[in-house]
Amino acid sequence: MAEALETKYAQSQLRQLNAALADGRFVSVRKLLHELASSDVALILESSPTRTRDELWELLDADFHGDVLEELSEDVRNGIITKMMPEKVVDALEEMDTDDLAETLSSLPDEVLQGILQTMGTQDRARAEQALSYGEETAGFVMNTDTITLRPDVTVDVVLRYVRLKGNLPENTDTFYVVNRTDNLIGIVPVTRMLTADPEDKISEIMDDDAEAIPVNMPDGEVASLFERYNWLSAPVVDEKNRLVGRITIDDVVDIIREDAEHSMMSMAGLDDEEDTFAPVWQSTKRRSVWLAVNLVTALLAAAVSDLFEATLSQLAVLAILNTIVPSMGGVAGNQTLTLVIRGMALGHVNMSNARWLISKELAVGFLNGMLWAVLIATVIAVWKSDFMLGVVIAFAMLINMIAAALSGATLPLVMKRLKIDPALAGSVILTTITDVVGIFAFLGTATLFLV
Amino acid sequence: MAEALETKYAQSQLRQLNAALADGRFVSVRKLLHELASSDVALILESSPTRTRDELWELLDADFHGDVLEELSEDVRNGIITKMMPEKVVDALEEMDTDDLAETLSSLPDEVLQGILQTMGTQDRARAEQALSYGEETAGFVMNTDTITLRPDVTVDVVLRYVRLKGNLPENTDTFYVVNRTDNLIGIVPVTRMLTADPEDKISEIMDDDAEAIPVNMPDGEVASLFERYNWLSAPVVDEKNRLVGRITIDDVVDIIREDAEHSMMSMAGLDDEEDTFAPVWQSTKRRSVWLAVNLVTALLAAAVSDLFEATLSQLAVLAILNTIVPSMGGVAGNQTLTLVIRGMALGHVNMSNARWLISKELAVGFLNGMLWAVLIATVIAVWKSDFMLGVVIAFAMLINMIAAALSGATLPLVMKRLKIDPALAGSVILTTITDVVGIFAFLGTATLFLV
Repeated sequence: MAEALETKYAQSQLRQLNAALADGRFVSVRKLLHELASSDVALILESSPTRTRDELWELLDADFHGDVLEELSEDVRNGIITKMMPEKVVDALEEMDTDDLAETLSSLPDEVLQGILQTMGTQDRARAEQALSYGEETAGFVMNTDTITLRPDVTVDVVLRYVRLKGNLPENTDTFYVVNRTDNLIGIVPVTRMLTADPEDKISEIMDDDAEAIPVNMPDGEVASLFERYNWLSAPVVDEKNRLVGRITIDDVVDIIREDAEHSMMSMAGLDDEEDTFAPVWQSTKRRSVWLAVNLVTALLAAAVSDLFEATLSQLAVLAILNTIVPSMGGVAGNQTLTLVIRGMALGHVNMSNARWLISKELAVGFLNGMLWAVLIATVIAVWKSDFMLGVVIAFAMLINMIAAALSGATLPLVMKRLKIDPALAGSVILTTITDVVGIFAFLGTATLFLV
Repeated sequence: MAEALETKYAQSQLRQLNAALADGRFVSVRKLLHELASSDVALILESSPTRTRDELWELLDADFHGDVLEELSEDVRNGIITKMMPEKVVDALEEMDTDDLAETLSSLPDEVLQGILQTMGTQDRARAEQALSYGEETAGFVMNTDTITLRPDVTVDVVLRYVRLKGNLPENTDTFYVVNRTDNLIGIVPVTRMLTADPEDKISEIMDDDAEAIPVNMPDGEVASLFERYNWLSAPVVDEKNRLVGRITIDDVVDIIREDAEHSMMSMAGLDDEEDTFAPVWQSTKRRSVWLAVNLVTALLAAAVSDLFEATLSQLAVLAILNTIVPSMGGVAGNQTLTLVIRGMALGHVNMSNARWLISKELAVGFLNGMLWAVLIATVIAVWKSDFMLGVVIAFAMLINMIAAALSGATLPLVMKRLKIDPALAGSVILTTITDVVGIFAFLGTATLFLV
């Protein structure tokens, strides 16, 4: 009986396993572990500290290692494989699809990978090297080679009889691909059409000959965009001679979409996409240091700008108190523009032709916001510190910085894209540097001119 | 001939259209517009300023309005519909699937929606109200009602003959659903199995009776998680009596996944998910003001903390110069932890059982990083300003703030989740407030004790 409660069943099993783990009842843990689907086992592993992870991996039957490895995120998977004997790894990888194989092998540290390749038999190694031959983050890397091909001159009836004899079809097959004698892709037939077509019809009569095929070296981000835009479930992959080499299915693309969407958010905080939330303390500390080092430099840069105005600051302590307000507002406003433009670029909305309009619009918004907040902050400060000129000074600095923030936020991603740098990663730190430097300079500079 | 160049063809058409638009050659624009797929037309509309958008909409044949509306993002779609005559809108919505209909109607401003419902004929209105009857962001809202159902006692051969007579199947059909006389879901049959099965077999013999069905009021985020985790292409939706009411296909889920993944990034900058990059200046200014207002309050709060130490600042101007360094580093480090935990929660890795371990781990990382950067900054400052005690003071403040940042970054999302507040939206502003206040207090406070 198909049950809406099935999902609840999986969830309750997860809870039971977590409870058994917490109590150290390893016999129960082992039993429950083997009742779960591979993706649920992967979820448990990813949600556990390293030591528990290793314990669970020991309890898991070797027959399931391959399935679970497929579902793990990069960091966690590498950690596990690095601790396994190469022979065990080779066994686990035997049944893996070529796209998962490529993904798994290419992310391994080089010595580990070499150790595994050397342990493999000839056939396995050939398959592994084929999978690795495509550039990472291309269509060839993501595709599966298990396509079902048809010849154009056979009838639907013949195909149906063959398929019935075969007994089953590869996972997620929703399209048959029609090739000629030299393996060139000449058409596609959706599986549903095989059901509705007259058995006497030839394949050539029922196929679509205008389907889009993906070049094997297309970047995977572009592949994901196409899938999303045209609502594809799968697409054929061809080489430069238009020969069919594989197919990409939507489940692989979904992973790419999630990673791309997360990438911006993670990068803007200076984190790696695949960062393992439960990595050991030392590993996490090391990773985040790089970003903190960069930010320390920008913080010292801002301090250096304040340093230029040491004389002014020593005369008017109130400036020291208010010094953070203008840079802070500029940073937030600029970050909004930056985030918006980065997302617009990711979605394909922003390109070189509408960029000019976008920049002038953001300038206008920056000016309006600048005026609005300049007036507001002037009022607050003038009242708080009973100093009208002080209000005017901070208002002026606010206006300048909001305009600078809007301009930077809109142009930085475009400039960085042209320089082929990832805008999400460097964009936010450069933006903050700009708004800090401009903000402090505008505020203390104007104060020096008019208040001292 | 299936061409890998097809994709290049679509791209070149887009370029041509953009060029024709820029030149004002509207006859060419009209012609090219109608050669594009609906999703490409939507892309052009979303990448254009409002006035161009309106012009393009006028040029587009009314027959395509419905298809294009389906593909537009919420803001852009609402903008267009609000400017259309209700009768035209009703015509455009006629052919729309129930899930797109629900999405389109529910996001409209209320008066516009009422105007459209009143203009609809009885049948259309019944369909619209049915589509709207499910809560937004639930499975019922996202599902399609065009399921193909089979009875368990018929043979495969009978089904095949029926399907051939029918001639075609609904879009993205990959599963047939088996129901009993009272419409209860009792099993599923993948379309591929209909091809491989013996025509003499009964449906009851070849169906899967243990498939997971989605309850009609399951939150769409959970639905998306299930699809992602188990690599589904589609899933049946049932009501509380286990009767089949619809199906959800992967293409709808892909949209949810992207929106959820972007949501965190957009929220952390204080932007709405569906924010229109090309909205008019006034609309953008209004929207961002709320976030800027909140940040102004936190900036003034930080200034108020500095204000407590006005005496200290007037005696030692160097403190004013260095005052931003400790809060800045704390903010960056805290934001890293915050982002990581938010993503961990979104992926389902972080839950109440491993939260305790996570918090203590982040505290350890905060302490290690605090020590490391305390020593580094002490050295830099002691050398720069030739003042050893100053170095010690700032080192101490740095350590305190890094620990506070780590603790806040790890616990805030968990606390907010329990309070049912969106952690991405409020988490970053609360975190910055904490690291600013603690950082400034620690620095100036310690300086007051030891340097003045």
